[in-house]
Amino acid sequence: MTAALLEGKPIAEKIKSALKNEIAALKTKAGCSPMLVAIQIGDNASSAVYVKNQKKVAEELGIEYELTTLPADASQADVEKLIAEFNEDDAVTAIILQLPVPKAIDPKKVIGMIAPSKDAEGMNPWNLGKILCGNYKIGPCTAMAVMELLESTGVKLYGKEACVIGHSEIVGKPLALMLLKKFATTTVCHIATGERGVLADHVERAEILIVAVGKPGLIKGEWIKDGAIVVDVGINRVGDKIVGDVEFDAAAIRASLITPVPGGVGPLTTVILMRNVVELFKESFKL
Amino acid sequence: MTAALLEGKPIAEKIKSALKNEIAALKTKAGCSPMLVAIQIGDNASSAVYVKNQKKVAEELGIEYELTTLPADASQADVEKLIAEFNEDDAVTAIILQLPVPKAIDPKKVIGMIAPSKDAEGMNPWNLGKILCGNYKIGPCTAMAVMELLESTGVKLYGKEACVIGHSEIVGKPLALMLLKKFATTTVCHIATGERGVLADHVERAEILIVAVGKPGLIKGEWIKDGAIVVDVGINRVGDKIVGDVEFDAAAIRASLITPVPGGVGPLTTVILMRNVVELFKESFKL
Repeated sequence: MTAALLEGKPIAEKIKSALKNEIAALKTKAGCSPMLVAIQIGDNASSAVYVKNQKKVAEELGIEYELTTLPADASQADVEKLIAEFNEDDAVTAIILQLPVPKAIDPKKVIGMIAPSKDAEGMNPWNLGKILCGNYKIGPCTAMAVMELLESTGVKLYGKEACVIGHSEIVGKPLALMLLKKFATTTVCHIATGERGVLADHVERAEILIVAVGKPGLIKGEWIKDGAIVVDVGINRVGDKIVGDVEFDAAAIRASLITPVPGGVGPLTTVILMRNVVELFKESFKL
Repeated sequence: MTAALLEGKPIAEKIKSALKNEIAALKTKAGCSPMLVAIQIGDNASSAVYVKNQKKVAEELGIEYELTTLPADASQADVEKLIAEFNEDDAVTAIILQLPVPKAIDPKKVIGMIAPSKDAEGMNPWNLGKILCGNYKIGPCTAMAVMELLESTGVKLYGKEACVIGHSEIVGKPLALMLLKKFATTTVCHIATGERGVLADHVERAEILIVAVGKPGLIKGEWIKDGAIVVDVGINRVGDKIVGDVEFDAAAIRASLITPVPGGVGPLTTVILMRNVVELFKESFKL
């Protein structure tokens, strides 16, 4: 292995420490606290882990955190009513819908109803559109986390060849817009790229490679360009191990920097969520 | 020249004819007409041409069209007040801010204030975000026009190598998202790509090439991939001629289809604007 590890934890700690100080000052100025309300519908083991972690980080930083649970058989109307109440409630400064939700609920519709000014995950169309406009302070946590990792390297993105594998709404597409804002030449690949047989060609050209698909071993180590920066967003359970989408060992021989999985993007997402909450609070209170 | 011409006019005529019938039926159902209000601030020769053309097409189709002019020294507050009035007015179903505006006016802020449900140009962040979500019926007219041109060819975009030159908010970025929705592998190039000296490399790989920069001769004919479809969005005055961004004659030897300039994207944009107006009307009246 020649690549250095691009780890999320030290960056997360830095952001947390800065946020802690900022929040203390903001509370004094505003005379109230940012409050994040999480909505969980039904029971879900992975969602429960997220909620626990969110609560811990929020409280550590000085953000009030409240969990509201609805039963698994809640209707779309129930959820929408709750969102409308939280939108109206001045004490609630940010809202997050915990995913996944039961099948009867349309999560996109619910997220579209969250007031853009309280949209902690930056997934409301208004906030996604602001990313397209290049005029944003909040955004989907994973995409924002990738940008933090890239910026921490000190590498200038201007004119770099960037390749994003995966064109989801929460990672690939917003991330491509963020990379374009930094003037990287940006290519987005997806399943049809693979079917066409040209995925390797695109990866081989990438100086900045971000993979967010969810398929272990999708990206072969020998495809990686010498000296590339590789951010692996994939989290896949293989046997009793968690691995990414990139063949780590083989890729690390060629890359200059590579994220470990776990330990790359993951440790950053909850902190970025809290930073979103703080940005929304500042915007609402004109601080 | 071996390329066939990809002309906008016949497609525009087809869309117009379908819209005319649709609007007649919608008016009967809704008991009222779609009404597009254009706001022009100060005098501007090119804006006057657009307005005249919009009025003509709107009336031809059965859309009411009203021009509201504000003096050149109107303030930001004046414009915002007007937008708020039109947002509230049920008779107004769509609003367009004519660009350019005088320097004292922030057009982005104004466009962001237009109710998303009345945003004729699809430039409000909410509507741009819906494009990212892949769930849109309206969009920026030029980007939508390019998609119409591409779709008229019958060529499947799935898995194609697409390259967009120019990363503006009104063409390049929304267009890239539209191409991704169709599963084209999509690269966006811009000034930093050129500075890096790799613009030719990207163009040479493009099966679908869209150029929206505004620099005559930027794309050399010999860069064009054999059989490529070339859509040239550029409109540049050179001497007494209007030319695009692509060296037309040399590109036409290699391309399979190429838009003439003028006569490619141009004839479609006003018709697409009217289609946006109709889609907004249908959405508002649940038709």
